[in-house]
Amino acid sequence: MCDCACTTHAASARTPPPTDLSMESDALLDALRAAVGPAHVLTAADGADLVAYEQDWRRRHRGRARCVVRPANTAEVAAVVRLCAAHDVPIVPQGGNTGLVVGGVPNASGTQVVLSLQRLNRVRALDVDNLTLTVEAGCVLQAAQQAAQAAGLWLPLSLASEGSCTIGGNLATNAGGTQVLRFGNARDLCLGLEVVTADAQIWDGLSALRKDNTGYDLRHLFIGSEGTLGIITAAVLKLFPQPAARLTAWASVPSLAAAVALLGLAQQALGPALTGFEAMNAFAMQLVARHFPALRPPLPDAAPYAVLLEVSDSESEAHARERLHATLADAIARGSVLDAVVAQSLAQAQALWHIRESIPLAQAQEGLNIKHDISVPVSRIPAFCAEAEALLQQAVPGARLVNFGHLGDGNLHFNVQCPPGADPAAFLAAHEAAINTLVFDTVRRYGGSISAEHGIGGLKADLLPRYKDAVALDLMRRLKQALDPRGLLNPGRVLTAGG
Amino acid sequence: MCDCACTTHAASARTPPPTDLSMESDALLDALRAAVGPAHVLTAADGADLVAYEQDWRRRHRGRARCVVRPANTAEVAAVVRLCAAHDVPIVPQGGNTGLVVGGVPNASGTQVVLSLQRLNRVRALDVDNLTLTVEAGCVLQAAQQAAQAAGLWLPLSLASEGSCTIGGNLATNAGGTQVLRFGNARDLCLGLEVVTADAQIWDGLSALRKDNTGYDLRHLFIGSEGTLGIITAAVLKLFPQPAARLTAWASVPSLAAAVALLGLAQQALGPALTGFEAMNAFAMQLVARHFPALRPPLPDAAPYAVLLEVSDSESEAHARERLHATLADAIARGSVLDAVVAQSLAQAQALWHIRESIPLAQAQEGLNIKHDISVPVSRIPAFCAEAEALLQQAVPGARLVNFGHLGDGNLHFNVQCPPGADPAAFLAAHEAAINTLVFDTVRRYGGSISAEHGIGGLKADLLPRYKDAVALDLMRRLKQALDPRGLLNPGRVLTAGG
Repeated sequence: MCDCACTTHAASARTPPPTDLSMESDALLDALRAAVGPAHVLTAADGADLVAYEQDWRRRHRGRARCVVRPANTAEVAAVVRLCAAHDVPIVPQGGNTGLVVGGVPNASGTQVVLSLQRLNRVRALDVDNLTLTVEAGCVLQAAQQAAQAAGLWLPLSLASEGSCTIGGNLATNAGGTQVLRFGNARDLCLGLEVVTADAQIWDGLSALRKDNTGYDLRHLFIGSEGTLGIITAAVLKLFPQPAARLTAWASVPSLAAAVALLGLAQQALGPALTGFEAMNAFAMQLVARHFPALRPPLPDAAPYAVLLEVSDSESEAHARERLHATLADAIARGSVLDAVVAQSLAQAQALWHIRESIPLAQAQEGLNIKHDISVPVSRIPAFCAEAEALLQQAVPGARLVNFGHLGDGNLHFNVQCPPGADPAAFLAAHEAAINTLVFDTVRRYGGSISAEHGIGGLKADLLPRYKDAVALDLMRRLKQALDPRGLLNPGRVLTAGG
Repeated sequence: MCDCACTTHAASARTPPPTDLSMESDALLDALRAAVGPAHVLTAADGADLVAYEQDWRRRHRGRARCVVRPANTAEVAAVVRLCAAHDVPIVPQGGNTGLVVGGVPNASGTQVVLSLQRLNRVRALDVDNLTLTVEAGCVLQAAQQAAQAAGLWLPLSLASEGSCTIGGNLATNAGGTQVLRFGNARDLCLGLEVVTADAQIWDGLSALRKDNTGYDLRHLFIGSEGTLGIITAAVLKLFPQPAARLTAWASVPSLAAAVALLGLAQQALGPALTGFEAMNAFAMQLVARHFPALRPPLPDAAPYAVLLEVSDSESEAHARERLHATLADAIARGSVLDAVVAQSLAQAQALWHIRESIPLAQAQEGLNIKHDISVPVSRIPAFCAEAEALLQQAVPGARLVNFGHLGDGNLHFNVQCPPGADPAAFLAAHEAAINTLVFDTVRRYGGSISAEHGIGGLKADLLPRYKDAVALDLMRRLKQALDPRGLLNPGRVLTAGG
């Protein structure tokens, strides 16, 4: 077959041959069973329960898979891709299925094959002197963290779903988390990749090099492409020495502007030792207090915002404590902080993080709500939030803002609950679309992103043409056409078929 | 014209129309003069001295430009690209013309237009709270460093050529330098780009966001593509608070293995405060002493290797000094370090760096030599060097190895001088190709890179098919075809026409 990306060829390749479809169907399943073993091709027809593969994490979408294939290694992944391509059948790559934007489950057609990477879960190598860990895509993040820890090292990628999300998914979606401030996103922790391409080639890019300027950076192209350009099967990750001490502090601040001032002060005083900087508004804390009374904020929640700071010190706990105290005292003297406490034990630190991490659950207890995952430049956070909140009150008086997130990265989950006493479902039905538009339009005016860390998936693909630069979208389409001309990898995700 | 990447179209597009070439030539020059002003279109026919644009930094290659165009802003860059594309004329983008791999100068044909970005040299914005600097491509690195410094901030990209290289060139080649250990390569310091595409569109990707997961990472695709996929016209760079103190130490070590052990020890003890880790062998130091007697190493150069450590401390000089002394004392106790000194003043620190930076000049004084820019995983440095040096001695007994570089990044300049008394030119003529093959083949066996920080350009494009994974090369060609189907941007660089 011609290798070119010409649309005429692609279109003709997509036209199915005039064969008996049930025969065709069996032929693919038989071939997949031969490739990976019958036990690893699951179908509803055979009585397998596919809900864990077909339904997304937030249960917004339940699709239907032609089958779920669970290859055991990279060669088998390539074989599965080759067979699906030969039968012109689309593939949905899937890791731990913890994504938040409906990017890793099949659509409702029943024609898509779910390719689960979960059996590719080995730690292939750990190089202490090179500070690198080579893992397969299906390795659970926590298992990778533990492999590093067992060698006295640190993999500083940390997410709420770390107990079940996989490295392949983390990279395919360029996951964020709570340590981006210091270590960057998942892409910044990756030195090399192994990828199965849409035409079933295996790219061995498992470089463990800090420097390699021999051509285009394929690694960063596959990372964050949400399984639409290729299937990540393994990766080399950067490790760091474990810090001597980690400390957590909680600070009440009089405003978001004060929180931004505290961030600047802490970055200046603590440098790279500042590894986390989260913020939450008073209403977020009230929701946690209401639904989880055992989780008590360490300071009265009358302040408009609270900030959680994390310090990782390579010297000692005493040194970290002294530096953090000095920084907070300075911030109090400058009026950026009203009051602050530093956790005295690991249990106290975990309790502080628990408050922060319980906000989504408290929101769920309070009732259905509208979630966002936006970012703007850190300097514009206060003005953005003021404007977006004013517009929100204008649109839906009484709507309650649950504003929290990774302030140090300019990334907030600017979520909205219905006005007190209103019916959450009716509120969503009436206002969700308008509030999304209001928030996203304001994000755009402030030079921000409508998806800071969760990705696009199927959930936001339709929004992209409105919010993404048209030239960028054109370039993205050309890249998709170049690497997956027949549109077999995770179709309709990130880029819609037409738009 | 059809937008597809089909080679038939591309081939027909490349066939020149049967017009009078001199007329055609005038038409392009006239149109370029109209677009950027007559003063900014330079030709040899008009008596302009084009050597600064046509000759590469190391004077290995002198090309001939059809003209040199110096647009003043992004719109003019797009106009120049549009005109060249309309006339089917290839473009060589050029920044400070300090590249080391013949990637930014025209070939000998006289048909290529040099597009100099030097007039796009403004600092567009500096955002203290967001820690970002927005600069145009032609801004000299040192000017960008100074803009950051004037705001009390730090742009931690530092190269020997910083007084004349430009940000656009730094990003197009993904420059390295002496602070990669802590801050990564140039790509890791970039949040957003503005790019003129091969079809003269302007992509405004000047994002100042730490997190943005809305589609494929175009930024990293253009960075490091050496002007073959698009022309970078501006960028948003990450800044950092200035450290309270920077200290430099010099340590004699008994072996490369000991140097690697010292690196691990220092990373554990100093964490992210360790911002530089350079190594050089005894012969490199002897060459400096021979040709620059005023530059005296602080310790006797009898040790096989010396290491230069740089510490950047956010607390105080006293604190940095105490930590560095403790680390070196520990390393001496463990036998990783024979002896060490810490600079007592800025002048002393600069003198230590001066020795390291004078190695290439001392090599030049000693005579013609064979240069490499390789990387392997840090853990494999000792074994790689032992094997490569043994093979070298076997191939050319007495050949002298000048081994030095950014050991913390696994990046060495594994350079070779002729045996004592031999004629350098005859040595190069007889052995350069064989020694390159010997070194690069060994690099490949150790999972390394034949170009760690300098890029491919025109110098190493022919080598790529031998040393780059075939699937990676295929993917690179598809990307080139997708973004520059007519091959007008820096043709023959990175990827050769045929190979």
